[in-house]
Amino acid sequence: MQRYFSNELINNKFKLLDSDIYHIKTVMRMNVNDLIEVVYENNVYLAKIISNYEIEKVNKIETKSKISKEIVLIVPLLKETKMDLILQKSTELGVSKIIPIITERTLIKLSQEKKEKRISRWIRICKEASEQSKRTDIPIISEFLNINDLYFDGLKILCSTRNKNNILKNVLKKTDSYDRIIILIGPEGGLSEKEEEMLIKKGFIPTALGELILRVETVPMYILSIINYEMSDCNG
Amino acid sequence: MQRYFSNELINNKFKLLDSDIYHIKTVMRMNVNDLIEVVYENNVYLAKIISNYEIEKVNKIETKSKISKEIVLIVPLLKETKMDLILQKSTELGVSKIIPIITERTLIKLSQEKKEKRISRWIRICKEASEQSKRTDIPIISEFLNINDLYFDGLKILCSTRNKNNILKNVLKKTDSYDRIIILIGPEGGLSEKEEEMLIKKGFIPTALGELILRVETVPMYILSIINYEMSDCNG
Repeated sequence: MQRYFSNELINNKFKLLDSDIYHIKTVMRMNVNDLIEVVYENNVYLAKIISNYEIEKVNKIETKSKISKEIVLIVPLLKETKMDLILQKSTELGVSKIIPIITERTLIKLSQEKKEKRISRWIRICKEASEQSKRTDIPIISEFLNINDLYFDGLKILCSTRNKNNILKNVLKKTDSYDRIIILIGPEGGLSEKEEEMLIKKGFIPTALGELILRVETVPMYILSIINYEMSDCNG
Repeated sequence: MQRYFSNELINNKFKLLDSDIYHIKTVMRMNVNDLIEVVYENNVYLAKIISNYEIEKVNKIETKSKISKEIVLIVPLLKETKMDLILQKSTELGVSKIIPIITERTLIKLSQEKKEKRISRWIRICKEASEQSKRTDIPIISEFLNINDLYFDGLKILCSTRNKNNILKNVLKKTDSYDRIIILIGPEGGLSEKEEEMLIKKGFIPTALGELILRVETVPMYILSIINYEMSDCNG
């Protein structure tokens, strides 16, 4: 069943975005009495299309899923197509929060206005990917941060091409002790040595991802797949 | 260093594709005496651009890597952009062979001529991705096969949404006994029950990939990442 996110429930009716109503009408060609799923405050509801394309709540069908670990992805600003792919795939693969950063070797420069536009676009991509992959939450996109301003608690993984000592499998063995896993990916030109040193001082563990040479946009998919695999193991 | 594949070595000179020569000249703007890497018969050579953009062998810098497991990916015919993504990312993630298949619910129909054109296109994508990720071989793209004609030896993984019993982690524990891992992915509408039964009779293990709901094109990246992770563990 098609799923949409809503932020408002008034008089038993969900308010959806205009673009969602357009999607329901024109893309899905749904009619009065057709049913959809609406996610509201992380709960999933069955809802019915009533006259004027209003969306009426029917009943709750799924309650907030148990809280699992928070997975934070820190990525450098990349070309738009690469960024879009990262956002869509990371959402499918269960990321909780995405933080775009500016690093020494980030080649793309954006004005404040363009940054805000990009972020709106990314929020839209993550919302659509969340609907498609039937999530009950949408990953949070943070404001741009400077690489020097990253202060977090958690298991902090720095995807590194320099370090060959800490292999991912060993680093992930520490997962159980943390509620949050933070993954930092460098830009295409790599992080500078100074940046890596600074991050290591802040508790990031430089981690080798194996023998493969991956494009930057493939790295989040690689590591998020593996984290999901290792974490779902506990339930398997 | 930029890497290219060659199929011919005559009088100490490598023959490259015209499109590679164009890339060297126009995209990379390289000149006489500049050095490149050429992969020839799975070995990597240092080579020098000499007059008229001929490519002269200098010396061997890397010999054929040890033979690891063969990883075969069987994918249904999908929309072009999805197919391109699968081919590029699977190449990065170490796939050995890709077999496009026609299933009951494959929506796209192609004439023989179009199929051949698609395959040429896919070979090109895999070659370029192999160069970028510094592979010493290019994944083989097979002709289209019908889902009823899949006869292989190896660990045969059927990515299934129906089965919840065999989790990937358990299935991959059997990896050591096989030289070849075969991964079959169904189309967007899923495989039919009849198709799944037929594949199970042929030794495919229906395998649950976890709780995530992934788009079809994300599944190869997910499973290939994990296979690489589990296999590189042996060396780590």
